[in-house]
Amino acid sequence: MHAPETMKPFRHIGTRPVRPDGVDKVTGKALYGPDFKAPGMLWGAILRSPHPHARIVSIDTREAERLAGVKAVATGRDFPTLESLVMHVGEGASDIVDVAHNCLALDKVLYEGHAVAAVAATSPEIARDALALIEVEYDVLPFVLGLEEALAQDAPLLHDNMFTKGVKPRPDKPSNASMRVEMGAGDIEAGLAGAAVTVEGRYTMEPVHQGYIEPHACVASWNGDGQAQIWCSSQGHFSVRSLTASVLAIPQSDIRVMPLEIGGGFGGKTTIYLEPVAMILSRKSGRPVRLAMSREEVFRASGPAPGAIIDVRIGADADGRLVAADVEFKYHSGAYPAVDAGAGVSSAIGHYRIANTRVVGTEVLCNRPAAKAYRAPGAPQVNFAVESALDELAARLGMDPLELRLKNAAKPGDPQTSGLPWGKIGWIECLEAAKAHPHWSSPLGPNQGRGIAGGYWGNYGGPSTVNLSVAEDGTFTVATGSPDIGGSRASMAIMAAEVLDVPYEQVRCVVADTASIGVSMVTGGSRTTFATGMATVEAAGEVRHLLCQRAARIWGASPEQVQWRSGEVVCLSGDKQGETMSVADIASRSFHSGGPIAAVSALSARGWLPGFGFHICDVEVDPETGHVAVVRYTAIQDVGRAIHADYVEGQIQGGVAQGIGWALNETYIYNEEGRLDNPGFLDYRMPVASDMPMIEAVMVEVPNPDHPFGVKGVGEVPIVPPLAAVANAIKAATGKRLNSLPMSPERVYAALHPEG
Amino acid sequence: MHAPETMKPFRHIGTRPVRPDGVDKVTGKALYGPDFKAPGMLWGAILRSPHPHARIVSIDTREAERLAGVKAVATGRDFPTLESLVMHVGEGASDIVDVAHNCLALDKVLYEGHAVAAVAATSPEIARDALALIEVEYDVLPFVLGLEEALAQDAPLLHDNMFTKGVKPRPDKPSNASMRVEMGAGDIEAGLAGAAVTVEGRYTMEPVHQGYIEPHACVASWNGDGQAQIWCSSQGHFSVRSLTASVLAIPQSDIRVMPLEIGGGFGGKTTIYLEPVAMILSRKSGRPVRLAMSREEVFRASGPAPGAIIDVRIGADADGRLVAADVEFKYHSGAYPAVDAGAGVSSAIGHYRIANTRVVGTEVLCNRPAAKAYRAPGAPQVNFAVESALDELAARLGMDPLELRLKNAAKPGDPQTSGLPWGKIGWIECLEAAKAHPHWSSPLGPNQGRGIAGGYWGNYGGPSTVNLSVAEDGTFTVATGSPDIGGSRASMAIMAAEVLDVPYEQVRCVVADTASIGVSMVTGGSRTTFATGMATVEAAGEVRHLLCQRAARIWGASPEQVQWRSGEVVCLSGDKQGETMSVADIASRSFHSGGPIAAVSALSARGWLPGFGFHICDVEVDPETGHVAVVRYTAIQDVGRAIHADYVEGQIQGGVAQGIGWALNETYIYNEEGRLDNPGFLDYRMPVASDMPMIEAVMVEVPNPDHPFGVKGVGEVPIVPPLAAVANAIKAATGKRLNSLPMSPERVYAALHPEG
Repeated sequence: MHAPETMKPFRHIGTRPVRPDGVDKVTGKALYGPDFKAPGMLWGAILRSPHPHARIVSIDTREAERLAGVKAVATGRDFPTLESLVMHVGEGASDIVDVAHNCLALDKVLYEGHAVAAVAATSPEIARDALALIEVEYDVLPFVLGLEEALAQDAPLLHDNMFTKGVKPRPDKPSNASMRVEMGAGDIEAGLAGAAVTVEGRYTMEPVHQGYIEPHACVASWNGDGQAQIWCSSQGHFSVRSLTASVLAIPQSDIRVMPLEIGGGFGGKTTIYLEPVAMILSRKSGRPVRLAMSREEVFRASGPAPGAIIDVRIGADADGRLVAADVEFKYHSGAYPAVDAGAGVSSAIGHYRIANTRVVGTEVLCNRPAAKAYRAPGAPQVNFAVESALDELAARLGMDPLELRLKNAAKPGDPQTSGLPWGKIGWIECLEAAKAHPHWSSPLGPNQGRGIAGGYWGNYGGPSTVNLSVAEDGTFTVATGSPDIGGSRASMAIMAAEVLDVPYEQVRCVVADTASIGVSMVTGGSRTTFATGMATVEAAGEVRHLLCQRAARIWGASPEQVQWRSGEVVCLSGDKQGETMSVADIASRSFHSGGPIAAVSALSARGWLPGFGFHICDVEVDPETGHVAVVRYTAIQDVGRAIHADYVEGQIQGGVAQGIGWALNETYIYNEEGRLDNPGFLDYRMPVASDMPMIEAVMVEVPNPDHPFGVKGVGEVPIVPPLAAVANAIKAATGKRLNSLPMSPERVYAALHPEG
Repeated sequence: MHAPETMKPFRHIGTRPVRPDGVDKVTGKALYGPDFKAPGMLWGAILRSPHPHARIVSIDTREAERLAGVKAVATGRDFPTLESLVMHVGEGASDIVDVAHNCLALDKVLYEGHAVAAVAATSPEIARDALALIEVEYDVLPFVLGLEEALAQDAPLLHDNMFTKGVKPRPDKPSNASMRVEMGAGDIEAGLAGAAVTVEGRYTMEPVHQGYIEPHACVASWNGDGQAQIWCSSQGHFSVRSLTASVLAIPQSDIRVMPLEIGGGFGGKTTIYLEPVAMILSRKSGRPVRLAMSREEVFRASGPAPGAIIDVRIGADADGRLVAADVEFKYHSGAYPAVDAGAGVSSAIGHYRIANTRVVGTEVLCNRPAAKAYRAPGAPQVNFAVESALDELAARLGMDPLELRLKNAAKPGDPQTSGLPWGKIGWIECLEAAKAHPHWSSPLGPNQGRGIAGGYWGNYGGPSTVNLSVAEDGTFTVATGSPDIGGSRASMAIMAAEVLDVPYEQVRCVVADTASIGVSMVTGGSRTTFATGMATVEAAGEVRHLLCQRAARIWGASPEQVQWRSGEVVCLSGDKQGETMSVADIASRSFHSGGPIAAVSALSARGWLPGFGFHICDVEVDPETGHVAVVRYTAIQDVGRAIHADYVEGQIQGGVAQGIGWALNETYIYNEEGRLDNPGFLDYRMPVASDMPMIEAVMVEVPNPDHPFGVKGVGEVPIVPPLAAVANAIKAATGKRLNSLPMSPERVYAALHPEG
């Protein structure tokens, strides 16, 4: 890979061209998951458990099968057995079994809403009626929802074969702790003992949902000859293919997944819920089968971000130098093991240089839907605790909270929590930009307060494939395997146009299905502009090379005699010296000079760098009601280099909006029967436009030296700081520290009026 | 390219695995052109001219536009002008203007059924009602349907700017002769004068239709931002893209064409009729628009194969050696210039060595739908004349007709009509196989006769792109840009599995859309198994190479230390000597050893060879009714090498069936008003299964040395000989030579009872 072309003025990078998916989406033409219909298609529906924890004694589907119009019924028994999965997928079989049993329960239901049976019928009404005819006999078991309750000695166990991973020696009895991760350095107790000032606190929150617009939906068609098609929207149709193939124990190439437009995922669409069930129903019925969740099903049965209990102790010397930080947290993993704890440990305190650290995270099984990724998964929760505690520490030290952070901020070369050194991160630059920003020094009104918080996210690279081809008229098409969630079609077209030095409009980008292009990882981990972008740059370079070769061949020149210049080929010497050949000229003659011009780049991108953000938040608290209004918000972020500036700002604004919702309103509310009481947007209160101020996004560009254009992932960072930024602002406005999310009017009011 | 692996026993080549599209098609799941529906889609309909020739004085669409539910109306004025097309496409602009005006007439209608206006409405019923509200004022002109009538001095001219191409000097006045092609060698008159025996005859036929099952249909969605999607079935979605972009003067990459399954094309789906009209309606209405032809519209307005008048003179010496052949034919080109004459000239007499030849073809404009390609376009008509005349010559010589052909058959190295030498053709081998076939010597019953005929078709190579990728579980996907009409998904999978030496089921093949893969030419010219197959072989070789590289990297070995063997990689030396690594092993580790494994091959295939066939046909003629039953049919063909043997035989059988229909029943019947009287399958009589005997396909394999597996195109050859084979059989059965097609019961009866 080339070094970033930092010195060169860019033609397209950083501009704001019209987004290529815009018209389709605003005019209703875009095909989303639920929009696709196949001829002869059946309508599926899923029966879900009313109990948070129960043994399935029996499922009698005979009455449902007898209903006219019902063409197939499926239960967990229709999945391959663990034994056959082990044969098929090898080591990862137990994870795959969890995925399968989350799609349709086998012996036990583990949460209210857990799928137990499914039907396919000739109409949605018949399918619903059929569900009512399925008789499930449950042996109801005690359930557990809370983190500490689930870790208690006598807690009901979700899985009797769960021995905590990451603990040595292996525990001698099963528990609900599925994983424990610990990192650190120095001597934590000695460090804390030597601190001039320490703060200590416990921070808590319930799970929250990603809140994407579009519920999960798919159509599957699985033939008797083994071949299948699935139409769905997801963050990764290749993941849909590999997961579905795995749980059904069939070859991946037997499934062709057609990506549809996605109405938001935020991590929640990196897994499967419906696809294998629709596949089973399709094979049984011999027809395509559609399954789609209602909003209620999305809430009851798709993966939220974990709730958490986080205990923090931080100490500093008298100069405000951090000397020790001890963070221990527990995250809900829900019904099956999850993996946020590792990312939470890595994202807790690594943005500061601290000699003595200990960060411990535990994943806790409980009778809730299996937790899934949500934008910077695992980071916002622990960041809320750490950045709240730092504000308390600054207050104790009598120090400006921004100065405290600046003084301790990690620089390139400093150790991360893992011990590995930080690369060329832009954290200090964000803090400096905040200090210089007019927001930081602007006055506040009555009942207003200003909070700040910084945070980071590791980002990722990984496998991506890009096909780039040239039409006969010299226009270009970029095909990627990455679903476009945050504008990747635009950024790929920009990067290809930059490499080729042609107008942006001459390059169009599409998302190709799993059979038409090589494997690409999910759009997640803030990886797409970085990794798929790297593949695009490589493929565009190859196409540029092929075009030069062809021009040389047509001219009868040697490849060394020609050069790419201003989007065309120029002949440098010989007979044709000074002549130019446009892409259209070359393309129109390509069939007779060697064939169509097309290139593939399939790579696993390396060299990604974490992203850092620093947020300034002003709130106004209504002392009469406890209502908190965010009145000004500035989010500063090192974006490496912005490819499409609007989209980068949009990512920052979107992440902040979600963080504010998490901070102020959003939460799962379970009742005493273990059932979710707010499974809809009326009661699960997400912010709407009128709840929000204009969020100012400030892009700091510290280019990534390992990406051809300096890209760092930008999508996840902005959700990390808002929880603490809002909490710190409320503290500043009211003098009250709220340690539990959401900081709803009720809780703020209670804090303001402790007398009750 | 490698030499054909003739000596190696094949694992898959030539086998008959289950076709991958079979289940979808027979269970009704396959999505054909008319099956696709988009959300918010409008229904389009087309108003067509009742006159075969008229000037359009005015089109008043106001009433139609006012009808509730009508969202857009289009006329020929909505296409870009000739001037702007010249700017956009350069030299080919006048052809492109013809394509546009065939989609929607501009100043004149040139045939009954010519499209004059189109509407898009919220229901098909409203669209139809709206058509009735469009007022078109016509200035009716004299029309001409017949070939000789159209060439008469005083014939009505279709185009007043048509100066016959191929005539030097350029004619000084316009005519209906759009093109004249002449080839030859020696001195034709001297040759004929020196012949011991000569025959002379005129052969005629009206146009016939390709008779594909599925009418033309598409959905187009064209946004205000310039980007469009078209869903349709065709023989080449890249051609749909380039033609539609050209007639609308927009960039090709702005259009994404999604291929749907195709219900037969036979050459008739290599052009566009509806797509640009649907595009215009979509842009005007802001919604996706569907247009689909009825069967009647297909007959009245889509391109048939040309009817013809063919004059033949052939002479031989006393030993039966052909000494001279003079062939002059006229083909209907219909409303716009067509190109069958060139292929007709090349396909007339080149299968025989004749010292003195003259072949002249003329394309004649007339007030019929524009002629389009139909399986071996231009060849069956002239072959009918030549192979009928040869039988007459054999009779005059008192010579076995097969011996006459064998004696004169062209061999590799002999000159074609163009003067270029024949390559490694298998014509003699077919004749020898016929002579040895039991059919040739089997007895005949009463009223039965046996006819033979030989013929050939040039075939083609050209541009194809293939993407081949490996899933994480080690299964393979081949994506091509070639619509699968004759089984190409199966043959690509076979060829890839052969190169990779893996089970056939481990390789799946799909047809990718125009944005997901590089350019590929139409499936036509019998090119797909040859050319796209060559790209598949190249891509599979590259993937095999990549897998070896990766295995070496994982082992820490050098690439030279590893080898592909039996579908896996084996280590030949060093630490890991003797160890093997499966594709699944390599693929599952690919993300951490360099990225996904994928390859593209984009090539213009060269080295194609013509195909030759020789047919034996037995008929039984009912003297009471003139009905001709084909009672036995053997078609022998040099197929180079059969990749999927069933499909090759199926192509041969299908071509013969169409040829028999053409010979005995099919014909366009125009009335005196210039209107088609039989625009439907009730009156346009195509053969059905019960009309057919079992057609025995005999594959002769003379491998093509320039294809890695020896492939020659097989799809078109089999329609060439049947017309003459049936005519010769009728002559043998009845003693009557029928020179006009179809040889319907009426005509046969008339020939048997000349007294009337």
